[in-house]
Amino acid sequence: MKGSLCAVVMAGGRGTRFWPASTRGRPKQFIDLVGGGTMLQMTVSRLSGLCGLDRVLIVTGAGFADEVFGQIPGLPVSNLLLEPMPMNTSACIGWAARVAADRWGPDTVMAVMPSDHLISPASGFVDTIARAVEPARQGWLVTVGVRPDRAATGYGYIKPGDLLDGFHPVEAFVEKPRPEVAQAFLEAGSHFWNAGIFVWRASAILGAISEHLPGLSDGLERLGTDTSADPVVYGSLPAISIDYGIMERSSRVAMVEAGFAWDDIGDWPALRRSGACRGEVISLDSSDCTVWNPDSLTVMLGVSGISVVRAGGVILVMADDYAQKLRDVVGRIEQQHPELV
Amino acid sequence: MKGSLCAVVMAGGRGTRFWPASTRGRPKQFIDLVGGGTMLQMTVSRLSGLCGLDRVLIVTGAGFADEVFGQIPGLPVSNLLLEPMPMNTSACIGWAARVAADRWGPDTVMAVMPSDHLISPASGFVDTIARAVEPARQGWLVTVGVRPDRAATGYGYIKPGDLLDGFHPVEAFVEKPRPEVAQAFLEAGSHFWNAGIFVWRASAILGAISEHLPGLSDGLERLGTDTSADPVVYGSLPAISIDYGIMERSSRVAMVEAGFAWDDIGDWPALRRSGACRGEVISLDSSDCTVWNPDSLTVMLGVSGISVVRAGGVILVMADDYAQKLRDVVGRIEQQHPELV
Repeated sequence: MKGSLCAVVMAGGRGTRFWPASTRGRPKQFIDLVGGGTMLQMTVSRLSGLCGLDRVLIVTGAGFADEVFGQIPGLPVSNLLLEPMPMNTSACIGWAARVAADRWGPDTVMAVMPSDHLISPASGFVDTIARAVEPARQGWLVTVGVRPDRAATGYGYIKPGDLLDGFHPVEAFVEKPRPEVAQAFLEAGSHFWNAGIFVWRASAILGAISEHLPGLSDGLERLGTDTSADPVVYGSLPAISIDYGIMERSSRVAMVEAGFAWDDIGDWPALRRSGACRGEVISLDSSDCTVWNPDSLTVMLGVSGISVVRAGGVILVMADDYAQKLRDVVGRIEQQHPELV
Repeated sequence: MKGSLCAVVMAGGRGTRFWPASTRGRPKQFIDLVGGGTMLQMTVSRLSGLCGLDRVLIVTGAGFADEVFGQIPGLPVSNLLLEPMPMNTSACIGWAARVAADRWGPDTVMAVMPSDHLISPASGFVDTIARAVEPARQGWLVTVGVRPDRAATGYGYIKPGDLLDGFHPVEAFVEKPRPEVAQAFLEAGSHFWNAGIFVWRASAILGAISEHLPGLSDGLERLGTDTSADPVVYGSLPAISIDYGIMERSSRVAMVEAGFAWDDIGDWPALRRSGACRGEVISLDSSDCTVWNPDSLTVMLGVSGISVVRAGGVILVMADDYAQKLRDVVGRIEQQHPELV
């Protein structure tokens, strides 16, 4: 397997949903959210069974170069792609595909993934990507589907067709469903979560971009294969997600089932699903709480459904209902306390 | 008024109900709970309109001498009475009464008070004590009654008789009532809270102790009037509250109505009644919360009925229901983390 593959790690998130642990200067992918390394470090570490660091491309914001090199020693300087501004996943992936094709040939197989998801075990991840390589070689755009264990409404769903030679042609993508639809999916076992992990030939995704997003294709042509993008050209690319722009439109999309536990840990309450915790906690008659306080003891008495976070000299105490609104709240806090956000 | 009175400040509390802000090494009376000085400092400061520091006796635990002298500069060394161990209020008050009688004569009028209650304004406190002095001179044991503004069940109540020359002979004391009884008291306006503030002649309280607690009277005789008590003798005194041991048994008890707002702030939720807060707080869709985090910002989102405290490197998040159980919980935490309690 090693040597035949390259990987693209998307580390462009600006997320403030993990404030105050994450800030604009240090987004989620760069912090040690669950213990055992930053999300980026864990993501890159998982790739070691698939390819060497010389074949790992990391795409991030222009201001984070030092952070990435500090966290991933040994990453070749030429493997960091610096976005002048975030332009959504189609642009980021298209650019990386052109760089990969230029460096390792148009038929190189790329594994594309976010940098801030929780995945275990690493061996299951390696196995899954390995299973996706053959259909990718055949020209399929392969996505990884995770079997739901709850009626989540925050994810996109995949409806796979019958198993065909180790993978499933995809019948349909379903946008974030209503609760009753998610419940029906769960009970039927008919749909999988779209984990945002893709495997394909560089030439295949570039061909699909050319077909479905010709404007992006032209822009990428102008952008070239430098690892620092011209801000004017990059900023003019259409900002569209790879799911909406390509996956939902292409007829040659396949799914492999994930052989690993997956969580995108999208907000503070999600952290407790993984059982992850930072700092010592004494809890009495408390349930469904997230505590993230790496530096000291937290005592929880008789509370439930809240998150308690201490970082950067700020304590956040938040009811679960507010987890998805935290981004907006942080925007308001920024007005008063720009130094804290 | 000045010169004719002395004051006894009881600062023996070992309270852990304000953990982690208060600890065994630094109980509630010695911390700046509400801003503007420690509870002890505020208590002594209120006395300045009544008597000089030379006539203020402070009774505390043997380990807290340095703390008291550090907080109350100018307190004569001989005015600090150090209890070898806590033996409840009758022993503490009886000992202080003997010291006061020895020093300033048996007919000196003593104002006795806890060191950890919130009282304002100070001028109302001075006026109230001044009103109590005349009945005290006549031999009454005078207690201060606070007109209830809610159906509190955590206080003892006083039923005063008709007004007589500026004070009310007390008809009855009522132990902590059930909620419906407290509600009836509130609606009838018939009962007052017992604030634990007393005014009497030294000779009057010593006479009452001799009558109702002869065992204590004998013990106090053996104890003498040194400001450091013999541990064996002090430890042998009957441990009984002044309310139960004397006030409820004596026939010559009077009440003056408090001309001040009063709160014993017995636990963390009580702190919010006073509007007191420590540290900056940003609160959104949150209500009925106590935040005590002097060092940094606390952000509260969508939560209610909880207390959030950070002190000594510990964060406590506690539902209001647990406030009265905190003492027990802290005892358990002490098993694991003696350094934190």
